[in-house]
Amino acid sequence: MKKESLGIIDAQYFTFAEPPRRLKLQSGRSLGPVTLAYETYGTLNDKKTNAVLVCHALSGDAHAAGLSPDDKTPGWWDGMIGPGKALDTRQYFVICSNVIGGCKGSTGPSSIDPETGKPYALDFPMITIADMVEAQRNLIDHLGIEKLLCVIGGSMGGMQALQWASAHPDRVLSAIPIATALKHSPQQIAFNEVIRQSIMADPAWRKGYYYEHGQPENGLAVARMIGHITFMSDQSMEKKFSRKLKKENLSFQFTDDFEVEGYLRYRGYNFVKRFDANSYLYITKALDYFDLSGDSFLAEIKKTTVRFLVISFKSDWLYPPYQSQEIVRLLKRKHGYTTYSDLTSTYGHDAFLIEVEDETRLIKNFLAHIPQN
Amino acid sequence: MKKESLGIIDAQYFTFAEPPRRLKLQSGRSLGPVTLAYETYGTLNDKKTNAVLVCHALSGDAHAAGLSPDDKTPGWWDGMIGPGKALDTRQYFVICSNVIGGCKGSTGPSSIDPETGKPYALDFPMITIADMVEAQRNLIDHLGIEKLLCVIGGSMGGMQALQWASAHPDRVLSAIPIATALKHSPQQIAFNEVIRQSIMADPAWRKGYYYEHGQPENGLAVARMIGHITFMSDQSMEKKFSRKLKKENLSFQFTDDFEVEGYLRYRGYNFVKRFDANSYLYITKALDYFDLSGDSFLAEIKKTTVRFLVISFKSDWLYPPYQSQEIVRLLKRKHGYTTYSDLTSTYGHDAFLIEVEDETRLIKNFLAHIPQN
Repeated sequence: MKKESLGIIDAQYFTFAEPPRRLKLQSGRSLGPVTLAYETYGTLNDKKTNAVLVCHALSGDAHAAGLSPDDKTPGWWDGMIGPGKALDTRQYFVICSNVIGGCKGSTGPSSIDPETGKPYALDFPMITIADMVEAQRNLIDHLGIEKLLCVIGGSMGGMQALQWASAHPDRVLSAIPIATALKHSPQQIAFNEVIRQSIMADPAWRKGYYYEHGQPENGLAVARMIGHITFMSDQSMEKKFSRKLKKENLSFQFTDDFEVEGYLRYRGYNFVKRFDANSYLYITKALDYFDLSGDSFLAEIKKTTVRFLVISFKSDWLYPPYQSQEIVRLLKRKHGYTTYSDLTSTYGHDAFLIEVEDETRLIKNFLAHIPQN
Repeated sequence: MKKESLGIIDAQYFTFAEPPRRLKLQSGRSLGPVTLAYETYGTLNDKKTNAVLVCHALSGDAHAAGLSPDDKTPGWWDGMIGPGKALDTRQYFVICSNVIGGCKGSTGPSSIDPETGKPYALDFPMITIADMVEAQRNLIDHLGIEKLLCVIGGSMGGMQALQWASAHPDRVLSAIPIATALKHSPQQIAFNEVIRQSIMADPAWRKGYYYEHGQPENGLAVARMIGHITFMSDQSMEKKFSRKLKKENLSFQFTDDFEVEGYLRYRGYNFVKRFDANSYLYITKALDYFDLSGDSFLAEIKKTTVRFLVISFKSDWLYPPYQSQEIVRLLKRKHGYTTYSDLTSTYGHDAFLIEVEDETRLIKNFLAHIPQN
């Protein structure tokens, strides 16, 4: 067991929106019942003022820290959450929940539709980042927390942090959006669209109703390979793979000659084992629909009281720094308390998962100065 | 008909390497007979000193200029080749041939294997950029041209220009590699590998033997969509599409809500009609195998007499300017005559097809100063 790890963490589940009190969605449709899988780390204080909500990225889950009970896998942000870490569990009560639409314990397209007794598949309603946040708000209410000390996340997690601050500025003291954007650019939409097309082009996808037959493996694997290229940077790929061959010579065959090819194939097909293809479709669409640009961010507010720490990474070309700078510009117009840091890293978009030391320094300092009124 | 167009241009064909005198390939295998489809523009002078070879990119063909006899489509570089243009056909004899491995008239995987009477499919031998150039050399010999005034091309065409100068420095007076590289980076290999995986994941690919049944449409379309994203820049996509919707509102369905999605789908599925999936596999592999870095470029030569004009584009992230700068550095070590220009353009990799005005200025001036010994 790693030093400073939280040890084994059990998942918890919260179910709400039992019909007829279903969760109303942005699309106009509704969903219920809704289950959220979540984990918590540390202890909620008596005044319930020390809660930090961590939001995960596209293929993340509620297991952000500690070790999973089954295979002892560390959480996806274990370096950031624990005793003495950026989100110090001796001080903060940290919560992470799997988003709706996902496939890691929360209600999503692979969940059983109580009306049919079968997986929802494409009968699952389209969900948005706002819907994900509304589901989380139900969980936060359930935990009896009136104000979150902080909402933090990278990539799609950062969108949720922005959405929380925008929709519930009275329930959030601070927000830390990392490596994220107010809206997807056409290039980001384009990558997601190709990812979706790759899944939907696989006949094994069966128009979404594949659950009796197994995943559309090839389509999903190719989709994930595209994703992986965008998560890394040209530099980090050069450093990791260069043009290293798997064997001594070129094969002059259609095999994976280069290490980078083998890596992509491995990551692509490994993803099939752990992520539902339809969830990938739903969540990428939620990312593309998200748009807090212009007047929609903190719409009702002239001067926000939410404190912001915005972080980007210089080599991130999927969510380039200019998108974080757009967030900062909008916040300045709302006269908000905003700190921005564009961190030097060669890891591309993955940096938000890797650059623990720099993030820890910034986040610890930022959180220490949030006035807990 | 556009002003200054060359008018209707008929394709020509040259067949060589009739067995047993087959073309020896870099893989150790051989190919024969080999047909090259080619077009010529302008007139070869008596001394045969005014020939310029234009090399095409991945999905290009021999139809570089003028109008096709059937549907009057202008050539892919029509803005660059013709009377008064960068490659002025009143002055130069311009040749463009379709690469071997292609599907536009030259011998490739969709050609009939004379031994079986069926398309080669995956029995076609792996080909390399060096093999493409060797085939072109046979054509140049056939045309009676001892020295090419210039070899020019963008992207994969630029690799061929580099390969010509490196393998046949005595047959080339000048070379103009545009938006290209001495070797693919792991990121470039990764994009090509995902393109290949997308095609090969389609059951309609049938391990390459699909010719009786039709193309693996979905896999090839998705592959091309990936390509299209890499050809454009973040800026050019923003300018062209922004987040414009196809209809008034979001659909909350898995349809193409955004214009950029519709564009990608259109370009992807349109490509299926005009390009052979196996050719895409073979040519992407040739791109990935290409490597003139280190000592392999102009290997035998301490001081090259070939004059170079190297051109890159600032917003090209598929073949970033640093790769052109690597070419320039290597040429300096060979004490070559090298001019380099990193052009400002927002069009990304596509710029080499679009920025006709800037290219014309550079190329006209460069060619005017080649001493025709």
